[in-house]
Amino acid sequence: MESFNELRERVARLSDVRAAAAVLSWDQETYMPSGAGEARAHQLATLQQLAHEMFTDDELAGLLDRAAAEVAGHDADSDEARIVKVLVRDRDKAVKLPSRLVADLARETALAQQAWAQARQANDFPAFLPHLETVMALTIEKAEALGYEDTPYDALLDEYEPDMRASEVRTVFAELRDELVPLVEAIADCPKPDDACLRAGFDENAQWRFGEAVIADFGFDFDRGRQDRSAHPFSTNFSTTDVRITTRVDHDFLPPALFGTLHEAGHAMYEQGVDPALDRTGLASGTSLGVHESQSRLWENMVGRSHAFWRHYYSKLQTDFSTQLAGVSLDDFHRAINRVEPSLIRVEADEVTYNLHVMIRFELELDLVEGRLAPADLPDAWNSKYEQALGLRPDSDANGVLQDIHWSFGLIGYFPTYSLGNLISAQLYDRADSDLGGIEAQVERGEFGPLRDWLREHVHRHGSKFSATELLQRITGGGLEAGPWLNYARTKFGQLYGL
Amino acid sequence: MESFNELRERVARLSDVRAAAAVLSWDQETYMPSGAGEARAHQLATLQQLAHEMFTDDELAGLLDRAAAEVAGHDADSDEARIVKVLVRDRDKAVKLPSRLVADLARETALAQQAWAQARQANDFPAFLPHLETVMALTIEKAEALGYEDTPYDALLDEYEPDMRASEVRTVFAELRDELVPLVEAIADCPKPDDACLRAGFDENAQWRFGEAVIADFGFDFDRGRQDRSAHPFSTNFSTTDVRITTRVDHDFLPPALFGTLHEAGHAMYEQGVDPALDRTGLASGTSLGVHESQSRLWENMVGRSHAFWRHYYSKLQTDFSTQLAGVSLDDFHRAINRVEPSLIRVEADEVTYNLHVMIRFELELDLVEGRLAPADLPDAWNSKYEQALGLRPDSDANGVLQDIHWSFGLIGYFPTYSLGNLISAQLYDRADSDLGGIEAQVERGEFGPLRDWLREHVHRHGSKFSATELLQRITGGGLEAGPWLNYARTKFGQLYGL
Repeated sequence: MESFNELRERVARLSDVRAAAAVLSWDQETYMPSGAGEARAHQLATLQQLAHEMFTDDELAGLLDRAAAEVAGHDADSDEARIVKVLVRDRDKAVKLPSRLVADLARETALAQQAWAQARQANDFPAFLPHLETVMALTIEKAEALGYEDTPYDALLDEYEPDMRASEVRTVFAELRDELVPLVEAIADCPKPDDACLRAGFDENAQWRFGEAVIADFGFDFDRGRQDRSAHPFSTNFSTTDVRITTRVDHDFLPPALFGTLHEAGHAMYEQGVDPALDRTGLASGTSLGVHESQSRLWENMVGRSHAFWRHYYSKLQTDFSTQLAGVSLDDFHRAINRVEPSLIRVEADEVTYNLHVMIRFELELDLVEGRLAPADLPDAWNSKYEQALGLRPDSDANGVLQDIHWSFGLIGYFPTYSLGNLISAQLYDRADSDLGGIEAQVERGEFGPLRDWLREHVHRHGSKFSATELLQRITGGGLEAGPWLNYARTKFGQLYGL
Repeated sequence: MESFNELRERVARLSDVRAAAAVLSWDQETYMPSGAGEARAHQLATLQQLAHEMFTDDELAGLLDRAAAEVAGHDADSDEARIVKVLVRDRDKAVKLPSRLVADLARETALAQQAWAQARQANDFPAFLPHLETVMALTIEKAEALGYEDTPYDALLDEYEPDMRASEVRTVFAELRDELVPLVEAIADCPKPDDACLRAGFDENAQWRFGEAVIADFGFDFDRGRQDRSAHPFSTNFSTTDVRITTRVDHDFLPPALFGTLHEAGHAMYEQGVDPALDRTGLASGTSLGVHESQSRLWENMVGRSHAFWRHYYSKLQTDFSTQLAGVSLDDFHRAINRVEPSLIRVEADEVTYNLHVMIRFELELDLVEGRLAPADLPDAWNSKYEQALGLRPDSDANGVLQDIHWSFGLIGYFPTYSLGNLISAQLYDRADSDLGGIEAQVERGEFGPLRDWLREHVHRHGSKFSATELLQRITGGGLEAGPWLNYARTKFGQLYGL
């Protein structure tokens, strides 16, 4: 195993450089002073270029070949065999990208991210446009370099959801849309639940403490993680022993901090649950964004917005916010946090309309990448699609095309994984529910250990050893399906709205 | 200038990697979760090894030679000429260190730093001892690799105070001690000022705000810096646009946070004042620790503990802490913050006895490095020296040999620069006072701009272009002198104690 061990040592150093870049990105979003943007962009570009050079180094190719021969006799599912397999797959992609393009993308996206933050605050799309044009051009160049059969979008999607194709997303999104549109319409005909109780003014520190107490109950390990504030909530990891989440706190609206914290903790527990033996191998992280989002959505929505969950926690929440919630019944609170209503902001959307937000972005991205839409025309295209799909026209670009950070980071092909995550979350939940003999009763008792351990055993510990498809096959015996999530949505919202 | 420009590009990338390592170190001291220590040690070791490899790369030697030829016709004090000169000097040192030793030191000191923090908290020197032994052995190996004429200590001191020798430190420390010991004795015979007013219990957020308001007045730029909490206050910089300080806040004792903030801001304003043209050249940082400490001591002590300073700020402090300070006169407060009394903790020592703390560490370091003292025997040696020099024997190792973070970081040869900084601060202050026509009156009016701009013009903007000796020569026409600081101390404390 001489070559394999040398490979591991090299990949360990590569992982360290990638982790350092992740620390710098975390810092940029949380604590970095405003004037440091340009210097940070240089630093990130250099680290990402170095990591790229280390990964595409010619010597590594020979080492991978020799290591592959050494592990040929191992169980195909062993750590050793999978480490070599995944490294070969990822390196094959990486060598297609010129080092110059990697550095350009790193630097330009760091600058674009800062420009986006300012443009969003100032509702100034034109100020962001030149950055978006640069990032889009580099992203299309990246897609061309990576190669594809059908559409350049496939090359980009593959970065976040390996082996998924735009055509498959189109198919599954069509199936979703066919049920969602009538569901949204049926709900629109019902009386709207009153959610004034969520807008009563909530002490920010008390909100923070409540959220952290819940995720500690879930099993988020604060010795190996922490939570900070940022404009856009995210989760990141530098090792299995250092997994961080961020949230934002709105004094006048309870859901963003609370459900944001549960959501990000779902991501983070995935990373904290990876087998430490995979640390510094390149495989110690979630296998795809769809599977990642299945974890965040499962804890945020299927657990955190369930009636059983609030049967356990509502009295504590009432105690913490007695002036706001003393006169609000559990059922009314549960209806308020599950209120379905077309809205402008994706991250604040309910579970039902959320997927429509994602579909709009998917369609716009396809148009951008395939050249049918210029970045300059995005605000109009965005607003028209919102009007068509959700019956609402954004009152400003800040509440429209500027609301998401993703494109500034060059994350094109990322949005569909949010909806894929919804679908996978229901597939996993159904299987766990059957294995554990009823999750709902456990949640009502505040017992999250069985669900968390089931996820750790079947999903988390494997890191990137298995692809999303392989993981679903191992767990459910089948592939991606929309049925379980549609069934969940029909049941839950059918009951809530008496449909 | 083709080679020079290529050199700059390479050194810019090297600076980025060093900056990334500095961000990771900052994070380790401020926000990193407790369980992440080992992973962070790996990450830091990899970055430092990479930076070392980039700096000692053979191609860089040729490039430096060719760049030196290109700038041969430039003014010897031009940025271009100085960049090449300083890079040649530093690279000559770096190539003497094997890459393996650099990585070992980075990893072992990261681990030792965490072990130190725990050992200090638990008052458990034996738990720290194996780490200290490892770090000391590696440090001595480093000194041998760097080479020296007289003592291995010279090789270590040179890292922090280029061109300074242990023998020179010994000489100037002897001159200091000859005056300090009788001064401390004379003060000991006087009635002690009452400092109960500093121990009255102070809201931590109010302490924080007061300190930040003062350094904003000094000219610390919060758009290019920030302050956080850490166990041991420090200042660090990732670019001239990102300079960070930390402090600790003691609810029951006013001085640590207040004067710690002023001290670290002195360091930080040096870094913020470097000419941005030097960013990413390797020269965009203070030239030596002695000069750095001259800046922190000047703002903390010569400004921040002066009577004039408190004539400006005391009424504001009284307003912020009215219950504690309403009945305390300006003169009594000024006497309290300048109370001279032998004590156990260096960072809380008064200006007069402070240098005795430094001398003890210098003597112990010499004994350690020259092999006369084993790390295991440090607690006894430490305690004996404190008894001898200050008349106090530490009641615990936490208040004795474990109080400083430095040795855990492998920073041997660093302590003397604290006292050198005191001496330089007085030399600079005297010169600025003469150039500006009386700093005291400006300070009393809260006008810090003239002093800050004088320091920026004569010290800050040059970064590492000139050595400490060159800088002193340019400013004062002479070299390092103890006279100005002794004169300052005699005058100030003579008045305070009526000697």
